[in-house]
Parts: sequence; structure tokens; C-alpha cells
Amino acid sequence: MAGTVFASVSMSLDGYVAPGSAGELMGRQWMELQAWVFPTRTFRERLSMGAGGETGQDDDLVRATCERTGANIMGRRMIDAGEAMWPEEPPFRSPVFVLTHREREPWVRAGGTTFHFVTDGIESALDQAREAADDLDVRVSGGAETIQQYLNAGLLDELTVSVSPVIFGAGVRLFDGVDSERVAPEQVHAQTSPRTTHLTYAVSQRE
Amino acid sequence: MAGTVFASVSMSLDGYVAPGSAGELMGRQWMELQAWVFPTRTFRERLSMGAGGETGQDDDLVRATCERTGANIMGRRMIDAGEAMWPEEPPFRSPVFVLTHREREPWVRAGGTTFHFVTDGIESALDQAREAADDLDVRVSGGAETIQQYLNAGLLDELTVSVSPVIFGAGVRLFDGVDSERVAPEQVHAQTSPRTTHLTYAVSQRE
Repeated sequence: MAGTVFASVSMSLDGYVAPGSAGELMGRQWMELQAWVFPTRTFRERLSMGAGGETGQDDDLVRATCERTGANIMGRRMIDAGEAMWPEEPPFRSPVFVLTHREREPWVRAGGTTFHFVTDGIESALDQAREAADDLDVRVSGGAETIQQYLNAGLLDELTVSVSPVIFGAGVRLFDGVDSERVAPEQVHAQTSPRTTHLTYAVSQRE
Repeated sequence: MAGTVFASVSMSLDGYVAPGSAGELMGRQWMELQAWVFPTRTFRERLSMGAGGETGQDDDLVRATCERTGANIMGRRMIDAGEAMWPEEPPFRSPVFVLTHREREPWVRAGGTTFHFVTDGIESALDQAREAADDLDVRVSGGAETIQQYLNAGLLDELTVSVSPVIFGAGVRLFDGVDSERVAPEQVHAQTSPRTTHLTYAVSQRE
């Protein structure tokens, strides 16, 4: 049986998932957006930040998200931005299928992460990710535009939005370009922690 | 002791609180946005829709919101839209201070609602509402632009956003025009129901 295709992102109260420019990725707003994830034990471990970190419900979510993910899909800009930040051993530890227009050989990194570059579209990337994930789930990691493409194509089954208490005012919106007439989210789970609220939706398409 | 100045609104997953035009106020998206409030016993009772309606946590919130409110503040467009929809006995049952540029005599309606038209700004409206509310709270009822004015002025203490599972794609955004550098929301409460998730923030101003 095929696994679930899901996305899980942190969103500001006003709907943004990233600042307008990569230079702000270490700025105050970004830190507040991600304030629930940075201190968690699993995040620290995955980012090779050493031992320690908090346990609890936020950590449980990060760990469960990691453990269910058998393969990732991401846009080219996300890997461009991430390459500079991810450690020697990238946090994915599973195959990553990168949507791009430029052919490139697979890039094998330490710890189980191999980046595969896919030039023939989102459905092909999903087929390859499903195959690689075996009976685990496929995570559409981002960025926003990539998640929108899968939402509009009816290929995303589940979306978790962690709504964080920060107002961006500008940047990259999660739902810009989503076909509001077709994409029908149904709230299936909500969980609050001191730093954010995790909202999970089953996504279907309206006829 | 002065009461709390608060707002409580339903917001779509992509950040909208109203459709782009008043004609869509009965449309599918609006109905989905408000799907958690329409069936509640308190809402039905306040809108003179007769007996019945659901009890439970959504109703508890609607009732608590009504009971804590000693006075309301709203923008002129909200009363223009509302006049056509509110019953003979408007749902407020307390003084309503309407921000406008045009002088108008107070408009006394059945059931305790009197609309007072305030032409000298948001601080004056708040002073009058506080006075009228006695030791109850003041609700900034809306619309979005009015809530934004109070947020930016540092006059709103608390904001509840009920995030509903619908994507608008267009319309009136809750946080457009909010000063993201100054307005600092702190999550203080979250509660989920089958139809929405209520997120409550204490609002302060960053120096």
C-alpha cells in the first residue's frame, strides 16, 4: 500500500512560511516562526547540533515527521538555500527528489541523504519518491511554490500547518496561487504547544 | 479596573476574514468560514433564529464572548453590511461605537443595542466604549481595517482568531497593514473543535 503524501510547515499568523529574501533567514521573524522546532531534541540531533534539547509534544511531532518520511520532494530554490545551512550530514537521511530544469547527477551525502534531480515534472518526482519510500510516507518538504503545485494537482493527501505567533507582513505566502475553488481542506487534528499550534488537514479536491 | 480590549474573528487558512465583495457574504466560502458559529445555540438565539442549536465548546466560546462584552467598536462598513442582515433586535445587546466621518444621531434598537457614531477617532471611540462597558470588556468587532487600526495603535490587548478549514484565495485579509515590526502576539490559549481551531493571543508592542 502506498504511503501518505504530506507537507508540514511553520506558518506565521498572517500566512507566510518564509521571508522575502534568503538573507533574512536568520532574522528575528524567522527565529520566532521556528521557535518551536529549534530547541527540540530531534531537530538538534538531525542538524548535528550535539546532544541535549527539549523533549515533549513539539519534539514528538518532529520525531514522528522524521520517522514517517521515506522520501522527500523539494523545489530547487529550497536546496539552493539549504546547501549553505545544512551540515555535512543533511537532516533528511532519506532520498530527496529535487524539482529542477537542469540535469544533474545524483548527489550522495553522508547519513543516507541522496539528492536526485528530476527534470520531468512533479508527477514523475512523486512516482520516484513513492518507489523510494517503500511503505513509508512521502514528504513534500517545500518551498511554498512546490507545496502549491502538489495541492493544485490533487496530489497532496495531508497538510500540517504549525501556526506560530509572529506577524511577517511580507515574504512568501503558503497559499498564494492555490486554487481555492478546488482545494478542500478538512481539519483532522489540532494540537497546541506553548510555542505554536499544529493544525493538520486532510486535503481533497472539490469537483 | 478597566476591562480587556479584545477582538474575536473567524479567519480562513490563508488569512482572510471576509470575501472581496458584500455580495459573496452568503457564498460557499463564507459559510465554510463561519460553519462553526452558525449552528451554535447562542448565535441562533442572538440572531433571533428561534430555539435549538448546538451546545458544546463552540457554543461556549460564542456565549462567553457575548457575556464578557460590555460595549462594541466597529467600522462604518461593517454596520453598512450588517444593517441589511441583522434582525430587528441586533445581536449586540450593548452599546456599539461606530467609527465614521459623518455625524449621526444615536440609533436606538430593540434589545439593548444602541449605535453611537464617533467622528473623532479610534481613541475617543475606545474611551467612550470603556466608559459604557463599565467593568466588562470592550470588543473591537471589526472589520479587519478597524482591528488593524487598534492593533497598530497598541490599543488591542487580546486577539482570538478562529482558523477555519477553508481557502479563500481573495478577499479582505486580517493582517494586511499590520505593523509587523511592532505588533507582538503571544499565544496564550488554543482550543480545537471539530469545525475550527480557536487561537488566542495576548498582544503587546515591541519597542
